[in-house]
Amino acid sequence: MINLTILKIGGNVLDNHSSLQFVLDSFASLKENKVLIHGGGKIANVLMKQLGIEPKMLDGRRITDEKSLEIVTMVYAGWINKSIVSQLQARNCNAFGLTGADGNIIPAIKRPVKEIDFGFVGDIDASKINAKVICGLIEQKLVPIFAPITHDKNGLLLNTNADTIASSIAIALAPYYKVKLIYCFEKNGVLSNPDDDSSVIRQIDENAFNSYKAKGIIHSGMIPKLDNAFAGLKAGVTEIVICGPNTFLANNPIQGTTITL
Amino acid sequence: MINLTILKIGGNVLDNHSSLQFVLDSFASLKENKVLIHGGGKIANVLMKQLGIEPKMLDGRRITDEKSLEIVTMVYAGWINKSIVSQLQARNCNAFGLTGADGNIIPAIKRPVKEIDFGFVGDIDASKINAKVICGLIEQKLVPIFAPITHDKNGLLLNTNADTIASSIAIALAPYYKVKLIYCFEKNGVLSNPDDDSSVIRQIDENAFNSYKAKGIIHSGMIPKLDNAFAGLKAGVTEIVICGPNTFLANNPIQGTTITL
Repeated sequence: MINLTILKIGGNVLDNHSSLQFVLDSFASLKENKVLIHGGGKIANVLMKQLGIEPKMLDGRRITDEKSLEIVTMVYAGWINKSIVSQLQARNCNAFGLTGADGNIIPAIKRPVKEIDFGFVGDIDASKINAKVICGLIEQKLVPIFAPITHDKNGLLLNTNADTIASSIAIALAPYYKVKLIYCFEKNGVLSNPDDDSSVIRQIDENAFNSYKAKGIIHSGMIPKLDNAFAGLKAGVTEIVICGPNTFLANNPIQGTTITL
Repeated sequence: MINLTILKIGGNVLDNHSSLQFVLDSFASLKENKVLIHGGGKIANVLMKQLGIEPKMLDGRRITDEKSLEIVTMVYAGWINKSIVSQLQARNCNAFGLTGADGNIIPAIKRPVKEIDFGFVGDIDASKINAKVICGLIEQKLVPIFAPITHDKNGLLLNTNADTIASSIAIALAPYYKVKLIYCFEKNGVLSNPDDDSSVIRQIDENAFNSYKAKGIIHSGMIPKLDNAFAGLKAGVTEIVICGPNTFLANNPIQGTTITL
């Protein structure tokens, strides 16, 4: 089976100019087939504040009202996505930007309102992803660059978690490629001591995850990231790594946290 | 040779909700291969004013400074492009949004500064367009939807005239398809009396164009549009029509102005 690397870069990496440049250098130099998924970063919130709109967040998750949807679509699918594409093109990487609406690649469902109305947020299902469209782009030697926007196929664009898009695309492509999924964020990996950047846990399996969770060593945003990772491995993704921008691809094996079942 | 329709929709059509819906209905119902190129509309200027930036225009042409480039990229490639994609997807048209930077489809050159510095504006050359990437998308049964943004392949995004993109893509695809190019704008065609919407000139060849120009009947923005059209026909485009949103595709032949050599 042909190798495919899927790289997800988080908002904090996008917001740091030198980190982003390093990651784009590394990504462009990767010879094998590849896909990139980027998050949002702070630009959307900055733009909202300039427009006098107060970003609504709940436990670190955005409440996407109509105006916010317009702004995140502009910022994620417009400015960030096309900036990354043009910077990768300058590195001779044939980047091709898109969202989940394009080619109906990632159909989503607007999140049902329960206790909280998250607004225009899309929930996705890896089994609904139109993997063959992505495969067709890769076969054309294009490098898909996804912004975290999907749609409901009824004319509604939806804001969607970039980590979830990354693991869902990895699962959807697993029947066609040997998929390595890399989550690149601001730390060097999953840390056993949040104040010590060198305390990277080299490997985590499900037992260790449950134990770290019970002890409170792994908490908040890292929990859904790891939940996503285990789900990916169970669904056929070959390898999943969580690492920082400076370790990413600089060494083989990558000096981050490898997730195993 | 297989038929291909290339539709360019102008800013005034984008800004009018019912016109846009009618055009998207017509476009989605077209059975043959198709490509859409959209302009900008007023949203970019509205957003700039909300941000306290005064849009700089000269003879109807935008001066694109750094901040304006960021905003037009957000609005054109982000909000407008993805809104059109999701609305066409809702009509079962497999729309796929992109810019000239994606897949390096439309490499451009930043316009050299002469008397006027237009800023981050890209000049393009039909012979440099990577037509095979567009053909590859069409062969995948995708419908390319272009936003009027290109790049210089050195990391710079560039604002580019949508009419020029439309005629350049038409020329670049002429060796592969029998290309019909339709410019859809707010009037029903080229008018002999600007105050009378029914005074559509049904057909214009180059002699008639020169005569209308000399009499001042055809002037300002219509001149480059027709110059582009004649250049397209000379370079192999089969048919070029200028029409309004309500006549577009409603009849066959289209009730607008047909341009002939």
